[in-house]
Amino acid sequence: MHFTHTTLGQRVLFGRGRAAEYVAAEVERLGASHPMVIAGESERALAETASASLKPALWWDKVVQHVPKEVADEARSAASDHAVDVMVCIGGGSTTGLAKAVALTTGIPIIAVPTTYAGSEATNVWGMTEERTKTTGVDDRVLPASVVYDAELSKTLPVGLSVASGLNGMAHCVDSLWAPKADPINQALALEGARALNLALRGIVAGADDLAAREQALYGCYLAAVSFASAGSGLHHKICHVLGGTFDLPHAQTHATVLPYVLALNAPAVPELAARLAAALGHHVDGAPEDRWAAALQGLPVAEGQYPASAAVAALRDLYRVTQAPSQLSAYGFSNDGIPEAVERVLKAAPASNPVPVTGENISALLHQALTGEVPTVSLFNS
Amino acid sequence: MHFTHTTLGQRVLFGRGRAAEYVAAEVERLGASHPMVIAGESERALAETASASLKPALWWDKVVQHVPKEVADEARSAASDHAVDVMVCIGGGSTTGLAKAVALTTGIPIIAVPTTYAGSEATNVWGMTEERTKTTGVDDRVLPASVVYDAELSKTLPVGLSVASGLNGMAHCVDSLWAPKADPINQALALEGARALNLALRGIVAGADDLAAREQALYGCYLAAVSFASAGSGLHHKICHVLGGTFDLPHAQTHATVLPYVLALNAPAVPELAARLAAALGHHVDGAPEDRWAAALQGLPVAEGQYPASAAVAALRDLYRVTQAPSQLSAYGFSNDGIPEAVERVLKAAPASNPVPVTGENISALLHQALTGEVPTVSLFNS
Repeated sequence: MHFTHTTLGQRVLFGRGRAAEYVAAEVERLGASHPMVIAGESERALAETASASLKPALWWDKVVQHVPKEVADEARSAASDHAVDVMVCIGGGSTTGLAKAVALTTGIPIIAVPTTYAGSEATNVWGMTEERTKTTGVDDRVLPASVVYDAELSKTLPVGLSVASGLNGMAHCVDSLWAPKADPINQALALEGARALNLALRGIVAGADDLAAREQALYGCYLAAVSFASAGSGLHHKICHVLGGTFDLPHAQTHATVLPYVLALNAPAVPELAARLAAALGHHVDGAPEDRWAAALQGLPVAEGQYPASAAVAALRDLYRVTQAPSQLSAYGFSNDGIPEAVERVLKAAPASNPVPVTGENISALLHQALTGEVPTVSLFNS
Repeated sequence: MHFTHTTLGQRVLFGRGRAAEYVAAEVERLGASHPMVIAGESERALAETASASLKPALWWDKVVQHVPKEVADEARSAASDHAVDVMVCIGGGSTTGLAKAVALTTGIPIIAVPTTYAGSEATNVWGMTEERTKTTGVDDRVLPASVVYDAELSKTLPVGLSVASGLNGMAHCVDSLWAPKADPINQALALEGARALNLALRGIVAGADDLAAREQALYGCYLAAVSFASAGSGLHHKICHVLGGTFDLPHAQTHATVLPYVLALNAPAVPELAARLAAALGHHVDGAPEDRWAAALQGLPVAEGQYPASAAVAALRDLYRVTQAPSQLSAYGFSNDGIPEAVERVLKAAPASNPVPVTGENISALLHQALTGEVPTVSLFNS
């Protein structure tokens, strides 16, 4: 046990239909009187609901993906012109991103009201784009002081998008288990996030109006962001970064498709975490995972599905089956031809701390399986 | 899901034998150059180890239980006289408490190096005593900026004291599951704390020199403090407060003795949490707890020990057996005669949110059982 864990100080408020009440209370708690409401035009109605108890000094609806610097500068000037002393941002990642860009130079506190599962609201990471180049950084000033989660505001998010976005959150949770700065604290939060997301996505698929399930999704994605921000990018995110950056594959679908294969590769090397993940996803592994692992290595009989790694992969795949999640990269334009270059780039980017040593062979095998959606191979001996 | 959770921002550093290195790095990170080292005389050797890489501007060894205000005032003046810009406190709760009292009025940041399982280092709660009256309060300025956990510094803590103090941490974890401000986040942290403490205490009893176990104890008690500070005092703490305040029973032993009985009372009303606690303590309950609960209520057969509540109580009692934990209040001078008054006081103090309605009957039964160390009654129908 040798780690440094930084916990970010933040208030989170959960309550269905309580956004307006919570936002007003948080504005008052911060001693602010000149709120700037930030929400894109498409979120106008949600924003009006959430800020119903406020008298905004400024409404800002120019929200652009990737936070262009000129938009951030414009918003900063306007905030200054209107003596803004708190920002209330209502929307997804781009909206929160703009508020963060303003906070970065002004120090104005943020109350974030997420309407998607982006997770940006739980991190101190900011990003801005200038001349087609994205710059990111870490600064505690951009961490929202308060986050208000009201499932009523996320109920218009379509089921397919909820699943894709929720599985992106699941990928944050799973990759946090073995990422370079993984530690017991972010592992515990990641497992709790995985538990919530498993229940949430099953619930949303069963009934799009299930607000309890949508609330669990917000909660799970909040924990996914907290644990991922703390643990850093693991192998899964490095692979998806290559597939997105070099082959232009779609973000959410790529993350969803690749995740079970990375889990199948890594889980045998971390049987205790695999058993806990399986349990979080509803598949209990009987007996101590170490015993089972030792038995397997000695060739003793172990029931099918009782290896922690197999149980974890099976549990995740069951969630995929129920939610009809993306399952093959070929559907998004990736092909055999791309595999050699992808392998080369992944080998350069892979974290040295990955629990299974990353080789051209295992990454190539992983990509071939993900390409066609084969059942992931969980090998006892690939570590 | 309707809650407000405040996460306190703090860095925690774990590493055996790394205290001096970590402390020096944290002092530098805070940009400080005039450290005040606070450590009682009995902790002098540990303090010298932990501050070996520092040039202290001031050594302070006047540490008194319950933080008398005159001692705090003296320390505040000395800190000011020596232009102190960071405090490094090495010791248990009283030492951290003195640093907090100084921080309260001066804002000087604290680096805490706990040598016991007190947990005060993870909270923003301060306490001071003036004219035999203890005042407590909550202020973010007293939350240590960094906490350095080095199991080497806790290895001289006797086994018996480690068990008592560790079970006090366990009580914080368990009571956090249903305390007035319990929420899913502090429940997840509390369960992770319980998991660590179960392993830790078994390890320490098996071998007093097991540093990995002592590290788990520090880790578990850290999470216990985080979750308890967030969730507040539940029924268990209210009962122990009455027993300690009115009947002068010893703190750690009272907490240890009473805990299984409160768990037996409350667990049947929170089967899902009971199942997760049982799992955290190493007793998996097969099947969804709700199914089992429903089966039991319908009179269907459920194997012994498979009720979530019974499993949780059995798991905790197994830890008590292995660690030879305190088990009867009669050993500490409590008697039948005290029960009526204790019941009366508990009824006044019990949180309205307790999952099982608190009655004179069930508290009286609980105290009678705890008095003689009877097997706690887990009733399906006491809720």
